[in-house]
Amino acid sequence: MEVKVLQDILSANDTIARSNQSRLDRHNVLTVNIMSSPGAGKTSLILQTIRGLKQKTRIAVIEGDVASSLDAETVQKQGVPVVQINTAGGCHLDANMTENALNNLPLADIDLLLIENVGNLICPAEFALGEHKRVMLLSLPEGDDKPYKYPLMFTEADVVLINKIDLLPFLEFDITAFHQAVTGLNPEVKIFQVSCKTGEGLEDWFSWLLNEMKGFRGS
Amino acid sequence: MEVKVLQDILSANDTIARSNQSRLDRHNVLTVNIMSSPGAGKTSLILQTIRGLKQKTRIAVIEGDVASSLDAETVQKQGVPVVQINTAGGCHLDANMTENALNNLPLADIDLLLIENVGNLICPAEFALGEHKRVMLLSLPEGDDKPYKYPLMFTEADVVLINKIDLLPFLEFDITAFHQAVTGLNPEVKIFQVSCKTGEGLEDWFSWLLNEMKGFRGS
Repeated sequence: MEVKVLQDILSANDTIARSNQSRLDRHNVLTVNIMSSPGAGKTSLILQTIRGLKQKTRIAVIEGDVASSLDAETVQKQGVPVVQINTAGGCHLDANMTENALNNLPLADIDLLLIENVGNLICPAEFALGEHKRVMLLSLPEGDDKPYKYPLMFTEADVVLINKIDLLPFLEFDITAFHQAVTGLNPEVKIFQVSCKTGEGLEDWFSWLLNEMKGFRGS
Repeated sequence: MEVKVLQDILSANDTIARSNQSRLDRHNVLTVNIMSSPGAGKTSLILQTIRGLKQKTRIAVIEGDVASSLDAETVQKQGVPVVQINTAGGCHLDANMTENALNNLPLADIDLLLIENVGNLICPAEFALGEHKRVMLLSLPEGDDKPYKYPLMFTEADVVLINKIDLLPFLEFDITAFHQAVTGLNPEVKIFQVSCKTGEGLEDWFSWLLNEMKGFRGS
């Protein structure tokens, strides 16, 4: 019974997500769903991406949080359109919330939409929003065993960014073992090592995004 | 409609949680529900607590994970009874899962039960398991803004442990601002600064646990 209810919810969500994606396709807005644990660096990644690419492309942001508008306020200072979604206790964004946010964004004037999901390694991976690409951040202090404990998130990602690489000297994190665990679940995934604090490695991430946008004219 | 379904689920959960708590009371097992983001250090805290207290008290552990039994295997090497719960995609433990785990533990021979919840700052705070105390870990790399973004978890906790304090020199984390944010939500909370890696500060945590056990004869 519980499974049936969940399937109904996911099926209804997918219908709205497909509609969102068609709408984003019509406006040629490449849309990226960014997921991670709390505090892994999603907002810092978005801020660095705006700074790195705003001369080359028109960016907008949807911020998802259980409560507060701290992140939206921070992003807004960068001069890009931003909408805050508060889930009021919900542990993930869904397609319906995303549709409401799209209604409040100037889609005709945007090339790249970055969606910051709620900080959670579990449920966000189950709910499509209409995005074209899924990106997850794993910050070094979380440990190299996370692919075994949260396999769906790592299986569904197009890109895994290993963030806070500047902390590597102070932590026990086996980069090789982590790569093997992730590619074991998801052989096609791209993995980049970055520090959103120092800027290290971000050029590879920017290049990937620009390349995806070049190839993108709806889907 | 959705809210009603959620209320029914939470009400059914609370009924089982109360039954679990009565059972734990009858056996004088002080039970602590440990919650945090993925990788904040719940398993390390449990391992350090076993090492620090196993000469003084009889400990058992319930390990909750979406997938894998890595943590239970690690804990079992310490020679204490342990049960692994896999939630198969679920983002929190609930009272029913806990009841099943209690059926597999020698409650008459235990004084202290540590429950490691699924790594998630949101839903675990909504589901009582039958525990007597709620402890949350916030690791320094997650950032000092988390009480604003995940207020329920900080409001419901009896103890907040600030873990990975050894990384303070390498991070921008305002301890005073964090204390103010937490006590603003929850004036009665105890806050301890610890490093499960170096052992710093753990004596205060051990003393708190021993004191709670001294005063505990069911409730």
